[in-house]
This record gives sequence, C-alpha cells and structure tokens, in this order.
Amino acid sequence: MAAPSSTATPLLKDELDIVIPTIRNLDFLEMWRPFFQPYHLIIVQDGDPSKTIKVPDGFDYELYNRNDINKILGPKASCISFKDSACRCFGYMVSKKKYIFTIDDDCFVAKDPSGKQINALEQHIKNLLSPSTPFFFNTLYDPFREGADYVRGYPFSLREGVPTAVSHGLWLNIPDYDAPTQLVKPLERNTRFVDAVLTIPKGTLFPMCGMNLAFDRDLIGPAMYFGLMGDGQPIGRYDDMWAGWCVKVTCDHLGLGVKTGLPYIWHSKASNPFVNLKKEYNGIFWQEEIIPFFQSVSLPKDCTTVQKCYVELAKLVKEKLGKVDPYFVKLGDAMVTWIEAWDELNPAGGSAKRPNGTA
Amino acid sequence: MAAPSSTATPLLKDELDIVIPTIRNLDFLEMWRPFFQPYHLIIVQDGDPSKTIKVPDGFDYELYNRNDINKILGPKASCISFKDSACRCFGYMVSKKKYIFTIDDDCFVAKDPSGKQINALEQHIKNLLSPSTPFFFNTLYDPFREGADYVRGYPFSLREGVPTAVSHGLWLNIPDYDAPTQLVKPLERNTRFVDAVLTIPKGTLFPMCGMNLAFDRDLIGPAMYFGLMGDGQPIGRYDDMWAGWCVKVTCDHLGLGVKTGLPYIWHSKASNPFVNLKKEYNGIFWQEEIIPFFQSVSLPKDCTTVQKCYVELAKLVKEKLGKVDPYFVKLGDAMVTWIEAWDELNPAGGSAKRPNGTA
Repeated sequence: MAAPSSTATPLLKDELDIVIPTIRNLDFLEMWRPFFQPYHLIIVQDGDPSKTIKVPDGFDYELYNRNDINKILGPKASCISFKDSACRCFGYMVSKKKYIFTIDDDCFVAKDPSGKQINALEQHIKNLLSPSTPFFFNTLYDPFREGADYVRGYPFSLREGVPTAVSHGLWLNIPDYDAPTQLVKPLERNTRFVDAVLTIPKGTLFPMCGMNLAFDRDLIGPAMYFGLMGDGQPIGRYDDMWAGWCVKVTCDHLGLGVKTGLPYIWHSKASNPFVNLKKEYNGIFWQEEIIPFFQSVSLPKDCTTVQKCYVELAKLVKEKLGKVDPYFVKLGDAMVTWIEAWDELNPAGGSAKRPNGTA
Repeated sequence: MAAPSSTATPLLKDELDIVIPTIRNLDFLEMWRPFFQPYHLIIVQDGDPSKTIKVPDGFDYELYNRNDINKILGPKASCISFKDSACRCFGYMVSKKKYIFTIDDDCFVAKDPSGKQINALEQHIKNLLSPSTPFFFNTLYDPFREGADYVRGYPFSLREGVPTAVSHGLWLNIPDYDAPTQLVKPLERNTRFVDAVLTIPKGTLFPMCGMNLAFDRDLIGPAMYFGLMGDGQPIGRYDDMWAGWCVKVTCDHLGLGVKTGLPYIWHSKASNPFVNLKKEYNGIFWQEEIIPFFQSVSLPKDCTTVQKCYVELAKLVKEKLGKVDPYFVKLGDAMVTWIEAWDELNPAGGSAKRPNGTA
C-alpha cells in the first residue's frame, strides 16, 4: 500500500515544457536544478548544427538543431529564424504540453529581499493558474494573491476574471534596455524588487520580453510566433516584442489575460550595445509605426480561434505595414507559414504527430 | 548676510494645500508633524458646525464648517455633501494652490520594509512632478524613478510622457475593501509593500480612493468633485469612486496622466461593515451600469478644458444614467453647480476672490 508521499509533486510536472534557445553548453541549468529538474526541457540549438551542446546530467530533454528543424518542417522551416534566439518558438510548436516556460541561458536564480532563492517557474505557474483582470484596474494589484482582494469600487460582475494566457516575468541586475539606453546608462542595474503581479489592461500594449516568460499553449500558443529575425533579416531583438504585440491584441480580442511582474530572474550579462544597435536600429524606426498599427487593430467577430486571429493579423500586417517596408510582406507570409506548420504538428483533437526528435 | 540654509525647503511648500475632512479633533496630525507642519492645511469640518475641532498647536490652517460653506457658496452650497467625507472637495475649491494632498484622519505614517517612516507627501509630490506614461505600458513601472527607465521596445516618441494630474497612494494594514469583502474577510490586513509607482493606462478605469490622494488642481481640479453623498442621499462611500471615474475619463481625453502605487499610509481602523453596507448597497448595483457608461464615454473634441469636459459629462450622466435612477439627474445638476461654484471662486486669470475664511 502506498503511503502518502511526503514530497509534494511539482506543480504541473507533466503539463509544462521548459524551452531554452542556446548556442552554448547549458551550465546555467546547474543553478536551476532544484526547480527545473522535474520538468521536461526542449532545447533549441541556434547556429552551427555540428556543434555539440552539453546539457548537465540528470535533466530530461529533447534537443533540436537547424538540421532537425529543416527535417521536421521541410520548406515551412523558412518561418523559423536562424542565428537569433527567435528560433525558440520552434520549441513552442513541437511541445505537446499545455504550458510553456521559456528562459534565456544567461538568466540565473534571483533572490527575494529576504535572501530566499526565487522559484521563478512556480510563480509563473501561480500566475497562469489564477485569473486575470483586464477590464478594470485593481489598485492592490493581483486580487488572487494571498492577502489581497478586489478593492472597494471594483464591479462584482468582473470579479471572476478571465483565463490567464501569459505570465511575463522581470529581471534583476541587468535590465532589458534597448541599445541606446544601454549606451547612455551602461552602469544602471535593476535592484528594485517590486512584489507585485498585475494584469495589463485590455487595450494596452506592452513590451514583452522573451527572457523569462510563461504561457498557456492551448490558449495562445499559435500567436507566440517570434517572427523573422537574425540571419538574412533586416532586424533583430524584436522577436519577443513582435510576439508580444500580436499576443496582446489576440488576448484582448479573445478575452484572455496577460500578467506581468513577479517572478524575477537574475539577468547576468548585458549584451553588447554596439552589436545590439546594429540589430535594433530598423526596429527603433519601425516601432513608431508598428505600435499605432497594433493599437488600432480590430479583429472581426468571426475570428474565434487564435489561428483565425493570427491569419487575419498576418493579412493586416501585409496590408498596412507592407507600406513601411517590404520586410513586413515577408513577415506576414511567414506568419501564415507558421500557422500552417503549427496546425500540421498540432492537429485538432490533440492526437498530434510526434516529430522524430533527436533527443 | 544670510548664510545658505542647511535645511532644505520642503518641496512645493507654498504651492500645496493639505485638505482634511473630519468630525473629530485632529490628534492624528501629531504623527505627521515632521512632514506636514511646513504646509498649509484646509480642514473641512463635517457634521454639527457648533462642535469645536481641536487642531494641535503649530499647524497653519484654515477651517470651514457647514455654516462657512453655506455663507461662501450661498445656494450653490447644495452641491457639497453633508455628513459624508465627500465634503472634502469644498477644500479643493477654496484652495488657491496648484497642488492638493488629501488624507483621512484615521491614516497614520507607515513604515517601509527597512523600518523607515514614509513621507507620503514627498512621494506624492515626486509622482506629480514627473511625467506619466498612459499610452504604452512600461514593465519596469515608472521610468522616471531613480534606477529605472523605459525598457526595450518602448517607442521613443512616447518617452517624454505627459503631465501627471493625479497621484493615488495606497494603504497598509486595513485595505480599502467594500462592505461585502469586509464582512467575508474581517481579519485581512494588507502587509504587502509593493515598491512601485505606475501610470494607469489610457482607456482603463480604476477605483480611486480618497484616503491618500494628491493632484494638480490647475490640471484637473474642477473634475475632482466628490458628488452628492451622505445626508439626504441614497448612497455613500462612492464619493471618491465617482470622482475617480470622472477624473480618469477627463484625463484620458485631455492627455493627462494618473499614477497609482507609492506612497503607503497606515490605515488604522476598519469602518463598520454593517454601516458601510447600508451606505454602499445602491452603489454596488449601480456601478454595474456606471462603469460601462464611463468606459464608453467619448468627449467631443471641443471639450478643451476640464470645465468643458465636466459639464459635458454632467449632461451625459443625466441622459444615460438618469434611466438607472433619478438620483443621477440630481447628481448631474449638482455637477454643473459645482463647476459654477468653482469658476466663481476661481475666476480665470488667477486673481481669485479669496473667500472670507474663518481660520
């Protein structure tokens, strides 16, 4: 007879994959071992596929390099970026789990003000498993956290909230600044621990960073496309931003929530601002037109699934942003290819074709 | 010859009034003495005007009771509530300063996590003197705080921000809950210190609490009307909520910012939930229609001043909410009276008639 286990099973152990894009050995996992080891990892190797990526012992993982991506997606592999961490979205597509957590390999375990190591994954899961409140702002932040609630004046009809699709975590130490800000403030470090989770209100866009991000694949997965970045593209470092704008517009349309705030990770190393500037400069111009575009997007009522929303968005991107630069026509096409590839690997009904992975 | 003073002059010393509505002696000011004493107080005495309110020695103040209000406003005094802290807005009207801070007399100095006493007024002033960012969400919160900035992906064209009209502070210990929540969670205390200030995005409404609130009178004063509450009215405890909805819609229309978060005050005593329920129950029903109304309000382009916005709002309130209850017709009329009284006491050009105060 089995005695009740004294060790609690990690939350969502069999329902969540951790997706890591990388070009190097994954020594950073050692620090995360107590938190990540129970989960399955999907490693997306960027750059030279002949290089061997070492993964510390004891982790359960599958690893895909460019050759694997090409083999699995065939011509549709063109929608997956090369030489850019945007390639991580391939991991979202091949996962068969309901939840995804994605993290960069230069992110380490942060400490809360009491000195305790922060289990970032656990906080993301809490965020995703409790509702969001996009229709009215709650001044005591997430009303579903312990010790909090809705304040006076919050409409009772809105207190059930809506399902949470995205949990966006933050970074201590190196803040996620653009190249110009990095250049101007090379020594700025984020030391402020803000003990809050909050819903980004409906109709408000935000800069989604892919460094420390979790989401519900079933609810929003097909909109989590990180675009065409890096090798052969006129832009980089806008992969997560692009996904964030598309995701937020889609969530707003479908009545889903996006949370930001806790958990923090420790971001160890600032990337080179000169290299970043080269990657970003087109984005810095283009975002001045992209953001008003997304702010004005209105999806038709018959867009009742993420896929339908996303294909409609792709059409609008080509129509409206194609005038800004031909790149957006290519990107709009890639968005459609992404959805086709997603649906191929994730047929309705859930009996997905398991890719011939290389793990 | 005067030597340079070694004591810094308190911020905005001659440009800010502290407005306090009360029915009792103001012993609570003792705890605030180091922070409030340099400033001028406007005390609005609620209830029985024959009662004497004691103010601790050393404070510079003027005090208005109901008789004073009636004398100064004449028939227009009907727009100022009686037996309700909503009467505080009379203080906003008679002030001649650019900034107002208002606080309840059961609010004490809170401590930050390091044990340091929080100068709430100083933080409000910092909030008001730095811009707001209502058009796009910054994930590291107020980019104008020390050690913070705009994150990657924030449009550069929006980084100047907009003028801040309102700073909404929070409460440790007793949270600002409605009667039903008070009844269900009598022991809940707010112990979470969230070290953040953030702009409430454009298009998003919030429950504005009047307990710990500061604003720029020049920018938004005429919209800070706390409505008809208390004696002779079918509703109470919605004075600040009403002001908050009107203010937010007006700020959104005029391109002004509303911040919430720091500073915290220590809210000492929960009000009686049974009494509160009696005051609130109409509001609990009505807010289900009021909030969609405010969410859908669109002010015409020719509303270029707060006064014009507010008179237009009054018209819409009568038209749209008058159907919910005749109370809103009366309230709409009172909103117009309020503006008339405001303009009488605050004629354009700034050479305002100084009321014959009783201080």
